[in-house]
Amino acid sequence: MLNKLTNWVRHRRTNTIYLAAMAVLFGAAFFARPLFGQTPGQEAPAALGGERVFKFFALFSDPRYTQLELVALMVVLAVAVAGLLYALMLMKQVKAADQGTKRMQEIAAAVREGADAYLAAQFRKIGPLILIITVILYFTTQSDLAAFKFGRAGAFVVGAVFSWLVGFVGMRLATTGNLRVAAAARHSYGEAMQLGYRTGTVTGMLTDGLGLLGGTLIFIAYGEQAYEALLGFGFGGTLLALFMRVGGGIYTKAADVGADLVGKIEKNIPEDDPRNAATIADNVGDNVGDCAGMAADIFESYEVTIVAAMILGLATFGHKGVIFPLLVRGIGVLGSIISTYTVKAGPNDTSDTALKSVHNGFWIGSMISVVGFIALGLAYLKFDANYLATNAAVKAGFPNGDPSQLPFWANLGIAGLDMRPVITCFIGIVLAIALNKVTSYYTHTTHAPVKGLAKACQTGHATNIIQGLAVGYESTVATVIVIATAILLSYLCYAGTPPLFVAYGVAMTGIGMLTLTGNTISMDVFGPVADNANGIGEMGYDAEAMEKAEKGSYKRARQILADLDAVGNTTKAETKGIAIGSAVIAAVSLFSSFIAVIAVGSEDKISLMTTEQYLAEAGKLTVSHPVVFIGFLIGGAVPFLFSSMLIRAVGRAAFLIVKECREQFRDADIWTGKKKPNYGRVVDICTSTAQKELIGPGFLAILTPLAVGFLLSTQALGGFLAGMILTGQLLAVFMANAGGAWDNAKKFIEDGNYGGKGSEAHKAAVTGDTVGDPLKDTAGPAVNPLIKVMNMVSLLALGVVMKYNIMTGTGSRVIGLLIALVCAVTIGWSIWQSKRESKELQEMEKQFEQ
Amino acid sequence: MLNKLTNWVRHRRTNTIYLAAMAVLFGAAFFARPLFGQTPGQEAPAALGGERVFKFFALFSDPRYTQLELVALMVVLAVAVAGLLYALMLMKQVKAADQGTKRMQEIAAAVREGADAYLAAQFRKIGPLILIITVILYFTTQSDLAAFKFGRAGAFVVGAVFSWLVGFVGMRLATTGNLRVAAAARHSYGEAMQLGYRTGTVTGMLTDGLGLLGGTLIFIAYGEQAYEALLGFGFGGTLLALFMRVGGGIYTKAADVGADLVGKIEKNIPEDDPRNAATIADNVGDNVGDCAGMAADIFESYEVTIVAAMILGLATFGHKGVIFPLLVRGIGVLGSIISTYTVKAGPNDTSDTALKSVHNGFWIGSMISVVGFIALGLAYLKFDANYLATNAAVKAGFPNGDPSQLPFWANLGIAGLDMRPVITCFIGIVLAIALNKVTSYYTHTTHAPVKGLAKACQTGHATNIIQGLAVGYESTVATVIVIATAILLSYLCYAGTPPLFVAYGVAMTGIGMLTLTGNTISMDVFGPVADNANGIGEMGYDAEAMEKAEKGSYKRARQILADLDAVGNTTKAETKGIAIGSAVIAAVSLFSSFIAVIAVGSEDKISLMTTEQYLAEAGKLTVSHPVVFIGFLIGGAVPFLFSSMLIRAVGRAAFLIVKECREQFRDADIWTGKKKPNYGRVVDICTSTAQKELIGPGFLAILTPLAVGFLLSTQALGGFLAGMILTGQLLAVFMANAGGAWDNAKKFIEDGNYGGKGSEAHKAAVTGDTVGDPLKDTAGPAVNPLIKVMNMVSLLALGVVMKYNIMTGTGSRVIGLLIALVCAVTIGWSIWQSKRESKELQEMEKQFEQ
Repeated sequence: MLNKLTNWVRHRRTNTIYLAAMAVLFGAAFFARPLFGQTPGQEAPAALGGERVFKFFALFSDPRYTQLELVALMVVLAVAVAGLLYALMLMKQVKAADQGTKRMQEIAAAVREGADAYLAAQFRKIGPLILIITVILYFTTQSDLAAFKFGRAGAFVVGAVFSWLVGFVGMRLATTGNLRVAAAARHSYGEAMQLGYRTGTVTGMLTDGLGLLGGTLIFIAYGEQAYEALLGFGFGGTLLALFMRVGGGIYTKAADVGADLVGKIEKNIPEDDPRNAATIADNVGDNVGDCAGMAADIFESYEVTIVAAMILGLATFGHKGVIFPLLVRGIGVLGSIISTYTVKAGPNDTSDTALKSVHNGFWIGSMISVVGFIALGLAYLKFDANYLATNAAVKAGFPNGDPSQLPFWANLGIAGLDMRPVITCFIGIVLAIALNKVTSYYTHTTHAPVKGLAKACQTGHATNIIQGLAVGYESTVATVIVIATAILLSYLCYAGTPPLFVAYGVAMTGIGMLTLTGNTISMDVFGPVADNANGIGEMGYDAEAMEKAEKGSYKRARQILADLDAVGNTTKAETKGIAIGSAVIAAVSLFSSFIAVIAVGSEDKISLMTTEQYLAEAGKLTVSHPVVFIGFLIGGAVPFLFSSMLIRAVGRAAFLIVKECREQFRDADIWTGKKKPNYGRVVDICTSTAQKELIGPGFLAILTPLAVGFLLSTQALGGFLAGMILTGQLLAVFMANAGGAWDNAKKFIEDGNYGGKGSEAHKAAVTGDTVGDPLKDTAGPAVNPLIKVMNMVSLLALGVVMKYNIMTGTGSRVIGLLIALVCAVTIGWSIWQSKRESKELQEMEKQFEQ
Repeated sequence: MLNKLTNWVRHRRTNTIYLAAMAVLFGAAFFARPLFGQTPGQEAPAALGGERVFKFFALFSDPRYTQLELVALMVVLAVAVAGLLYALMLMKQVKAADQGTKRMQEIAAAVREGADAYLAAQFRKIGPLILIITVILYFTTQSDLAAFKFGRAGAFVVGAVFSWLVGFVGMRLATTGNLRVAAAARHSYGEAMQLGYRTGTVTGMLTDGLGLLGGTLIFIAYGEQAYEALLGFGFGGTLLALFMRVGGGIYTKAADVGADLVGKIEKNIPEDDPRNAATIADNVGDNVGDCAGMAADIFESYEVTIVAAMILGLATFGHKGVIFPLLVRGIGVLGSIISTYTVKAGPNDTSDTALKSVHNGFWIGSMISVVGFIALGLAYLKFDANYLATNAAVKAGFPNGDPSQLPFWANLGIAGLDMRPVITCFIGIVLAIALNKVTSYYTHTTHAPVKGLAKACQTGHATNIIQGLAVGYESTVATVIVIATAILLSYLCYAGTPPLFVAYGVAMTGIGMLTLTGNTISMDVFGPVADNANGIGEMGYDAEAMEKAEKGSYKRARQILADLDAVGNTTKAETKGIAIGSAVIAAVSLFSSFIAVIAVGSEDKISLMTTEQYLAEAGKLTVSHPVVFIGFLIGGAVPFLFSSMLIRAVGRAAFLIVKECREQFRDADIWTGKKKPNYGRVVDICTSTAQKELIGPGFLAILTPLAVGFLLSTQALGGFLAGMILTGQLLAVFMANAGGAWDNAKKFIEDGNYGGKGSEAHKAAVTGDTVGDPLKDTAGPAVNPLIKVMNMVSLLALGVVMKYNIMTGTGSRVIGLLIALVCAVTIGWSIWQSKRESKELQEMEKQFEQ
């Protein structure tokens, strides 16, 4: 794998060298502790009274850490590495599998090339931005200690690279696995299914491993001053995920919609027909969007939740508060390793049994985790007099400052024990399962909502759309109630304690929720792999040869692939609820860090904050203040604008693809199948358009919080975040579920209900599906990283915003005004750009009108 | 008119007698001051230390009120009455006009009967609810003074009756005017246009007159203790408006969609074809929804903004703060009287010149108002030492407590002058115009968004829908920015003053915004009147007779009606932005009353509140508190649920109408035009279904804030309101504008673009229009009153919620839990009910499947 990667980097030369150089530079600085930090006296600013003496790896010489804790941290590191090794092992298994015929390999290679080209192009586009942001992060760190500056900027680069790596490897693997699955389907259902699932598991374990590795390493290096580095790490992962999600989402739906419009609707040929120039792009899109995009997205959720838990853990329960979530994650990784390996299917299995095996894997993982959490809690979560003496802040977390006064449900009668973190983790696991169920209820063919949509298709296009909107609206309510209940329960666990403790409880719910990320991603990536394998079967199987070898084998193999595709669609859909749920939970828990920073004036003084300071600042974030309310209104509108931009982008890109495909169909040789269409041209269009369309939404995500902050103060920025989280979540769920329901209503009709394929009802269902496509696969999922990027940008810029904002800033307001203006103008330009029709579109328009 | 009304009441006998009795009862109690209040010593509770001595009409003997002020109040009363007399005069003009042929009169009578039947049925349904709520309001008033109890409950009834009256009279007039317009169109464009517009003006002036009358009378009676009565008045108007909006919205769209599905789509006959049994119901629906619903809706905005301004004015600038908005409203009424009378059209005018005349009227009204405001401000807004001495709270509103230290822009260099209220009113007027422009940009055929939609129709149903969603999403952002800017500017006017002063600024923006309510409603009601007139023309004109009398006259008259219909559509659409904008502004300004009540523990102590108390309480409403955030999440989800329920309701009702129409078409005599279809049956179905479907959303609106409050504390209720205002506003704008854009994209294509009527593009456009119908005419506009009802319920229940809520209540929590459970169960039942298919639907389903 590493070989492949270096190879790949070598081939892109100049374009990527600067990023590699930068990574090495910061990486070296990041881990080279002798360079700085050992002479803190010189660098510690007078303002801090010299209190802050920073030393790398200080925890190894800190008497408060027991030997056992240090060993446990090393064990966590080992588990993270074990996860990565498990991924490597599975990767080898997948690669060693049969690769099918030459024709199949050609098709797979075309898809793979397209996917590579896309990621490379994106790399070239995002690279400079990452570089610029790195420099800005370095210089805007409020601390004067070089270690913190490097920590923030360096961790940002590491986070970004990890996120990109998860997406990149996941996608590469998917484009390797799809071929093997198609090949295996020729002789065994079980083998094909297992290969597909394991391909997904590789990405899953990579996410787990890298996420845990990064968090643990940062903590080991920075100890109790990890705040800056953790934020940088989280932001890097989140930003990359946003770009992967947005770019991938535009790519996949432009290709899909374009291919369908020309192929299925205009020319009436089946999906994946080799004569359609857009088919390869369509298959590339599945990898780029559903695989790279989704993997990067969940990676950043995984990352941000651990970042939030660690930051809050430090500020509340001291180092036990940090080590506990890391250990929990370790158990989760072990649980994922064991449970994903149990997912198997026999040669004669069916969709039902296969799905059961996947679900069983999830349950086994959950059981391992829950048992592990309880054992861990009983062993580790003990707070004795000694710990309380050396970690003064902890006392506030207990009734009257005394752990032994906790009620029975929290300490099980054992004085000094505090099982609340375990309980909140458990709430998180239940939340994940409940969100899966809600998603499933609103989007599965077996439940009333989708059946209702299919029925509505009988009365036409419009009734299907209207019903779908109603279903989507309603599903947001169910989701909100589930999430609100989880937050309420974790709040009740910590009721009576100061706000940061409550926030820690919410953060631990997030940790619990993403415990089985390995399994979740396996289920998710299985979707595009099976979809692609089906495409390779359609285009690449040699029906004659297969039938000659064994009668009926072609049909059987195609049926296996179709079944797997259906299973993949189901498992993929189930995981969507978790992605948005985790975004909300992470955002809510990070919100208290936001207030804490404002309260004490700078990130590096959080540990000195009093509860009174916090409450005073939190009180200013009241929605009753007009400026906060204005921020709140604007924040609420941003997800709408963002979605609107993405939807338009898909439309524009699809238009260009339709044009290209139509042109190619005019070539009689292509139409009759004598000549291969030029797949590459469509792939190129998708790649370049997706990159172009990336810019506007990207600027919107990064610059809006800055514009609000500098123009309207930090309080307005707080309101902005709250409004944005609320509507972002509602809109994301609405779009994902309405889209999913339309998709499955179409499938339900295609299964022979209400007239089946070709009926009027089916046409109405296809309209619903097409409307749902950009909602559920482009705009909806991109809102997750949007929420987190805006949160992270706000947190990182907070120091500068406090100083220079126009309303309440202490520094030069001219600087604030200038920054706000630059941001506002750039956002305006992005919006204008996103509405403008490209030259090609205008030309096409003219042709159309002639 | 009054004659008609009493006649009508007499005919409904038992059904309405109890309401009339109740109104008389409370009305009598309300104004019979000798009964109570003059012996306050006995009733004033000890807790208040006997401080609160209440006397009706106290302001006449209060030395702080100048003789001039008392006269001015009487002048305002006179202006309100003048507005009502002007309405009466116009009504007579309309009624005196030519009523056309017998056939036309028959049709108009059928529409009118249907409309009457609907309102009567609604009255029967809502009556008991109003009665129950009146009793509850009486007993939950926190003050022990009977005057306040009667004030709250009685004013509630008056508010409800006024709101209902506006809707009722508006609708009656519309069903009178439509016939006259159709008759006048046979000989003159100008006369028809003027009649239509004046019909609308009657409703407009009724709104103005009754709104001003109610507010002024309450102030005169209760003086500085008007809080309770004002809230009751506002709630009554709001609640009735919600029911009128929801019921009307379901009625109008069920009839419209049902008529179109069977007539236009299945049978391919034109709209308003007399053979279609649903045509009368369709025309009734226009009156019930667009006329009664919209008038009641704007009436309550008019009412709630004055309530907010008066409550806040009292708490800040003393009685000048109350009298000023009343005077402003008075000027607005005068402006409307003059300007609406200038709207005229000549016999040979066209749509363009007619529209210009309407717009000119609006501009003239604006000019009169602005000049009037400035003159009023210069004359009245003077704060001398004497005033400051007797109104201690006022000082906080000026820099260092000294009016002469106001900056130049606020006092124009005249010491003691404070023009800030005038400036905020002006901001409101600009806001109204800006919202009109935004709505216009996103929904008119002359601008890019609608043109883009029409273009998208070429590539099919799905692309039209997708683009429409993008347009709708984007329009919310523009609206939010306009509203946020207005709030920011009014905040900046009062920056540095305590929060209630800032809130007063925002409330005055709301007053300014609704200054020209008379003109706004005239423009709005003109829509359904012209639409109906066109229908009467289609069904009722005797083409042969007309052509015999004068060649070409039939065609000319039909063209005039079609033109007027188009003008009406335009003016109607323009006013939609104002309705939602005013809801947000009113909600924001009322929010501070909400906090003030919590801060001092009871409504009747607001005037004793200190700024510190307010800030302490406002601080608890921080979104960083999990419980507030949970309320916030739930509040955000409610408008989605509400919309989903309404959309489904329309679907269900339309289904029943389709069934009925199909059955009637099977009668060959009806199909060939030999026999009149049974219009009444469809009207009955619409009426009964709309009533049935009203219950669920109604319960949701009233009970959700109670459930949240009792279960999660007043803080969560505050978060709930904030979340609900935010998503309510976004969703309302999204639905209204997306729907409007689809509607006009269809019209644009019907005007001959992209293939015109009958083309594939047109079919796609019709799908968009049908999807948009329930969004723009049912769910979207109903969200306005929803926002305000929830706000009012929260304010009114606050005292009880503070006492009995489970989290922080001071009284028995069992009571709180019980109330919360009853609310939750009822809401659950409503949701279940709204998803359940009725028996008829299930039967139909079975028939369908056979």
